Amino acid sequence: MTCPYARFLEPEPTNESNSTSSSNLTVNGTTGSSDALTEIISMTGFANRPAKPELKRLPSSDELVTYNNYLRLHTILDSQILMSAKHDINKTAVHDEHLFIIIHQTFELWFKQIIYEIDSIREIFDKEKVDESQMFVIVNRLNRCVQIWRLLVDQIGILETMTPLDFMEFRSYLSPASGFQSLQFRLIENKFGLTDKSRIQHNATHYMNTFPNEHDRNELQNSVETPTLLQLIERWLERTPGLDDTTFNFWERFKTSVGEYLNFLKTNAEDEPNPTAKDASLEDVKKTADTFRSLFDEKFHNQLVQRGERRISQRAIQGALMISLYREQPRFQQPYQIISLLMDIDALITKWRYGHLILVQRQIGNKQGTGGSAGYSYLRSTCR
Amino acid sequence: MTCPYARFLEPEPTNESNSTSSSNLTVNGTTGSSDALTEIISMTGFANRPAKPELKRLPSSDELVTYNNYLRLHTILDSQILMSAKHDINKTAVHDEHLFIIIHQTFELWFKQIIYEIDSIREIFDKEKVDESQMFVIVNRLNRCVQIWRLLVDQIGILETMTPLDFMEFRSYLSPASGFQSLQFRLIENKFGLTDKSRIQHNATHYMNTFPNEHDRNELQNSVETPTLLQLIERWLERTPGLDDTTFNFWERFKTSVGEYLNFLKTNAEDEPNPTAKDASLEDVKKTADTFRSLFDEKFHNQLVQRGERRISQRAIQGALMISLYREQPRFQQPYQIISLLMDIDALITKWRYGHLILVQRQIGNKQGTGGSAGYSYLRSTCR
Amino acid sequence: MTCPYARFLEPEPTNESNSTSSSNLTVNGTTGSSDALTEIISMTGFANRPAKPELKRLPSSDELVTYNNYLRLHTILDSQILMSAKHDINKTAVHDEHLFIIIHQTFELWFKQIIYEIDSIREIFDKEKVDESQMFVIVNRLNRCVQIWRLLVDQIGILETMTPLDFMEFRSYLSPASGFQSLQFRLIENKFGLTDKSRIQHNATHYMNTFPNEHDRNELQNSVETPTLLQLIERWLERTPGLDDTTFNFWERFKTSVGEYLNFLKTNAEDEPNPTAKDASLEDVKKTADTFRSLFDEKFHNQLVQRGERRISQRAIQGALMISLYREQPRFQQPYQIISLLMDIDALITKWRYGHLILVQRQIGNKQGTGGSAGYSYLRSTCR
Amino acid sequence: MTCPYARFLEPEPTNESNSTSSSNLTVNGTTGSSDALTEIISMTGFANRPAKPELKRLPSSDELVTYNNYLRLHTILDSQILMSAKHDINKTAVHDEHLFIIIHQTFELWFKQIIYEIDSIREIFDKEKVDESQMFVIVNRLNRCVQIWRLLVDQIGILETMTPLDFMEFRSYLSPASGFQSLQFRLIENKFGLTDKSRIQHNATHYMNTFPNEHDRNELQNSVETPTLLQLIERWLERTPGLDDTTFNFWERFKTSVGEYLNFLKTNAEDEPNPTAKDASLEDVKKTADTFRSLFDEKFHNQLVQRGERRISQRAIQGALMISLYREQPRFQQPYQIISLLMDIDALITKWRYGHLILVQRQIGNKQGTGGSAGYSYLRSTCR
Repeated sequence: MTCPYARFLEPEPTNESNSTSSSNLTVNGTTGSSDALTEIISMTGFANRPAKPELKRLPSSDELVTYNNYLRLHTILDSQILMSAKHDINKTAVHDEHLFIIIHQTFELWFKQIIYEIDSIREIFDKEKVDESQMFVIVNRLNRCVQIWRLLVDQIGILETMTPLDFMEFRSYLSPASGFQSLQFRLIENKFGLTDKSRIQHNATHYMNTFPNEHDRNELQNSVETPTLLQLIERWLERTPGLDDTTFNFWERFKTSVGEYLNFLKTNAEDEPNPTAKDASLEDVKKTADTFRSLFDEKFHNQLVQRGERRISQRAIQGALMISLYREQPRFQQPYQIISLLMDIDALITKWRYGHLILVQRQIGNKQGTGGSAGYSYLRSTCR
Repeated sequence: MTCPYARFLEPEPTNESNSTSSSNLTVNGTTGSSDALTEIISMTGFANRPAKPELKRLPSSDELVTYNNYLRLHTILDSQILMSAKHDINKTAVHDEHLFIIIHQTFELWFKQIIYEIDSIREIFDKEKVDESQMFVIVNRLNRCVQIWRLLVDQIGILETMTPLDFMEFRSYLSPASGFQSLQFRLIENKFGLTDKSRIQHNATHYMNTFPNEHDRNELQNSVETPTLLQLIERWLERTPGLDDTTFNFWERFKTSVGEYLNFLKTNAEDEPNPTAKDASLEDVKKTADTFRSLFDEKFHNQLVQRGERRISQRAIQGALMISLYREQPRFQQPYQIISLLMDIDALITKWRYGHLILVQRQIGNKQGTGGSAGYSYLRSTCR
Repeated sequence: MTCPYARFLEPEPTNESNSTSSSNLTVNGTTGSSDALTEIISMTGFANRPAKPELKRLPSSDELVTYNNYLRLHTILDSQILMSAKHDINKTAVHDEHLFIIIHQTFELWFKQIIYEIDSIREIFDKEKVDESQMFVIVNRLNRCVQIWRLLVDQIGILETMTPLDFMEFRSYLSPASGFQSLQFRLIENKFGLTDKSRIQHNATHYMNTFPNEHDRNELQNSVETPTLLQLIERWLERTPGLDDTTFNFWERFKTSVGEYLNFLKTNAEDEPNPTAKDASLEDVKKTADTFRSLFDEKFHNQLVQRGERRISQRAIQGALMISLYREQPRFQQPYQIISLLMDIDALITKWRYGHLILVQRQIGNKQGTGGSAGYSYLRSTCR
Repeated sequence: MTCPYARFLEPEPTNESNSTSSSNLTVNGTTGSSDALTEIISMTGFANRPAKPELKRLPSSDELVTYNNYLRLHTILDSQILMSAKHDINKTAVHDEHLFIIIHQTFELWFKQIIYEIDSIREIFDKEKVDESQMFVIVNRLNRCVQIWRLLVDQIGILETMTPLDFMEFRSYLSPASGFQSLQFRLIENKFGLTDKSRIQHNATHYMNTFPNEHDRNELQNSVETPTLLQLIERWLERTPGLDDTTFNFWERFKTSVGEYLNFLKTNAEDEPNPTAKDASLEDVKKTADTFRSLFDEKFHNQLVQRGERRISQRAIQGALMISLYREQPRFQQPYQIISLLMDIDALITKWRYGHLILVQRQIGNKQGTGGSAGYSYLRSTCR
């Protein structure tokens, strides 16, 4: 198989200085291509062994797929139906509607890919113990998600080539807010675990109107009932090796270091000769101390969870801390990369929403009345 | 309509300092929303006139499309058939095959968009005279093509997250080179006018095997028989206003300036005290002079066209020169942007091929034997 | 001059099929390079005229600058002083501090470029009438600013390769908030006109501490006292040709169209058979009507200006509206591009702040105590 | 320290539902900020221990650096000297020269960063054994180089906003090719090991003219005499654990698998019913077999090294193969990432050169005479 975008070319004439093919270079004086083949096989010491039966049978020529069939292009490239052409008495399409359709279809194909990756990662994590060789697979797939989200953030820019005035010409054909929702995007939010409990209740009501299709509703149901990536990560972090190790005693050591550090900061601050700088420093130390409170005070941590300011258990945070502090240890290198990539994805989804928000503001203004909710002010709060 | 990715939210509580809605601010003391509506309409001086019949009837609620239906997602998201799952006795899909499919399907959707834009631009150019207001439309659509190609260049990077070893696991199911070609990419090349005459003959033979479908062949035929964008641009450049203006006499003035410039360079070079620097400068002047030859010498220009080093007529080049030199004149501002964007697109398609080339080299090596042609050495020459 | 990154290469051997140099192709049978030079000059009809005295004298070989000297690299590449190496008793630099320095130095170089472009654009706009050929220059420079901001948005990503824990190792050497401010970024905000009056007063107090250098303070003073880009754009929009044209009467026509449109929407809504959809539609129409209020009601517009929800005069908005609605007219094409690019820049600066915000949150947490203000919660509000 | 680009803001008023500061939430009923501080310290069990002497003394307020001083901005932002302003009798700067200077200065700052990273990686690799915890550091720094090169590839695009005609206005002040070379770029090539032996000899002559400064020449000398990254990687790969393990016997197993695979392919090909497909398949198998030759045939491998088609030893390639095949094993995960990142960097440097090449072609044409070497045709060959 080769690059489907390559031009039809005659092979370059091979000349002695360039070619590495059998016909030009010999080993042990043998020439001739079939001899060269036998020759190489014999170098492997395998010349006389038959093909093992468990190797997959290669497809014969009639089973091979063409580019067109493989990618179902006859279907996919026939799915752009412009409403402006359909409804207009004169059947004059609004030119920019085609871009609107294409860009959302490509978003949805990439969403499908992201869901495919997340599901495979959740499956790996949904075990008592995650194998070390599987760490490698998880890191690669999370990194792939990061690359895809980076592309999607850039992709929004293409929609900026459609002016608001052009958009107005066909958007009246599109459902109001409650009917114009992406199912896959909801699934991504749910499967990542970005959707908190309160919104799930709130959403449930909306789902009735928005996703009338029973299959869709089952998928949504499944996405909140099966363990989310965040939940699985939380359990995995709670199992971080060494947390309970009484010989090393990580937590005690950590608390000691923190206390030591805070005392040291306090001493430094008190030694500051300049009074204004001294007050500022002391205030500074108090705030620094405060950020550690939730690590040592379980009730306080739980209050933060109630308020939505923490999303995972205190023990899980301890696991994350241990991994971060000892990230150069072989056993924690991949776990650290995993934590890092999850934060990258979180930041990218936020940037994507924000870019989309800015775009919508330019397209439909700050307080655009539409049926249902939405409008710029509402979308703003999704970027918390 | 609103952002399909927005969360379901209750509207923000409006308070006096934030709201600009009718209910909070009054004009002439009127309050109440329906009154505000009447009030605004009356401000327009239009209160008593009926809706004009020629405004399109808005669709009623049963005609509105949902996000899912509008984008035909049930079809599009059901078109990812993995060969590795289909053929394997154990039906174990190769995970990365899904990415391979998705990325090529999104490439093809964007190719469709690019063809849609090029065709609309070709239609505008295919007239005796291109209206000035249409210049604006052409510039916008060419810029959109540039943004899309920039995205596609970045998109190749996502395929780099699939290792060559993963790729090997499923590529044996895909057709060899001659059967794995993108029709739309050929159409783009042809419609831009990037495919020169010799390759068109050469390709014609290959089309028989590669695109057996009659509809496909007709499209290819049409893409070489109807005027390409390059041909239309050439004709448009030849019509550049002012070229024949005997009062201003652009061409004579230009030749004079060039001669003046070359004489000046020659004099400067001869004045250079340092002998080595003098020789270098004189050599330099000769080469500079040489680049102007084809502008003044029509036979020479035609030789370059024969050799494929020039693609448009001498008169067209004169037009382009005039536009470039006087680009700040109102009449030439948009034409200059058009020329500029065409060069951007040309550079981007080249970068895209190159990025694809590097990727293929990593995936399948330098001289990978496959049925038909292709392989890295061959692809390299597409980046001339 | 050539590419400073090119390898040292011997020139390719020229052969007849590739070369276009004088030595291989002749005109009128002449060969030999100096003859070819004379020949080309004579084609221009300029053979016998001397170099005009007003052409700039080319620099002689001893005046030419090398890459190193031209770019002052000996200075610039000697300006990375790591605090962690300077203060540590053992002089062990924190590796990542070098990246922190380099990335901020490059940000500052690009800020200087942006200021250079803005100042040149402000100078062009600060006239009674802006020449049409200068429109072209403005569009190019605004587009350049857009490209630079896009790069700076991506550049933030490189700082994400420095983990918070690495950052902690050297940041104690850096001034607290009040002393760690970028002057150029303030200048950019002020010169664009992004800084509203209230913040200018507030800032003035802070400037005393933050920018003790008198030259810096003068620059800041100048940036708020001379007309900002936004002010100059406002005046330019108010002068939009056609606004006062009583023959065409744009404003009356516009009000009529709006009234017509609102009446039409109202009629459609009242015709909607489904009661729920009907109520939603009517509510929708009221909100739509409301967005037009500030266009027709000058007192209301001024209230919005007071509240910071509008930044330019009502007449300027009328100018912008006219340009947008008639953007395909030759006289409005460049003005429309200018408005469009300003909006792009505004969006990009917002995205840049947001990206920086997310980064800071990861680096120093949500409520990091530091001297002065700042911390994540505060920075959030800059992204309004 | 805070974000240097933040606006001056008053802290948000804290209210009970938002604040996590000491003053609002208590533990054990204590309130008051200093008490909260003591309270937290006591939670650590550290209340009574003094600051350990080995913690670095924090700088006092007079030692802290401001943003300006830290980044030496007074120097860096004063290093943009436009030749067009300097030499012109009327001192009118060519506007675009400023961009030309800034963009090359930022390239050079990033080159310095890349050299800083490479040198630190070379230092780690230049040992008998590379620690596993250092693997992590190497992966992070290589990834950082990848991110920087991605940015530099995009950065070239900004130079495209300068038209060739603008460039012509000031480039006559710049040295011809031989004097306009980037030292750091040469160092990067040499330190990576991209410069092969023949070019080093060739270059040595040019260095005399191009880099007259003795310090520069010493750096270049050092960069070819000390082990390059490629050489160190080669030695590291040759030490891949398991290569000599006679119990596992990787190499014998590998040869066996290859022979098995080739035999299998051959059998499949011979079974193909369609004669044309059969011939194509057999030809295919021969080519596939050929790619393995250099792995088993040491003389052949050395011939390829002589011709520059292989850059590292056969044993090093065996090491790379082992790492790739067993990349999911814990011990090979980081090594595999290292190999992968090196290939990414190689591809990116090639794309950067190519983008630069395309730009130069647009700026100065295909065969632009300049003193010394260069021009488009020459630059092309750097992208082999």
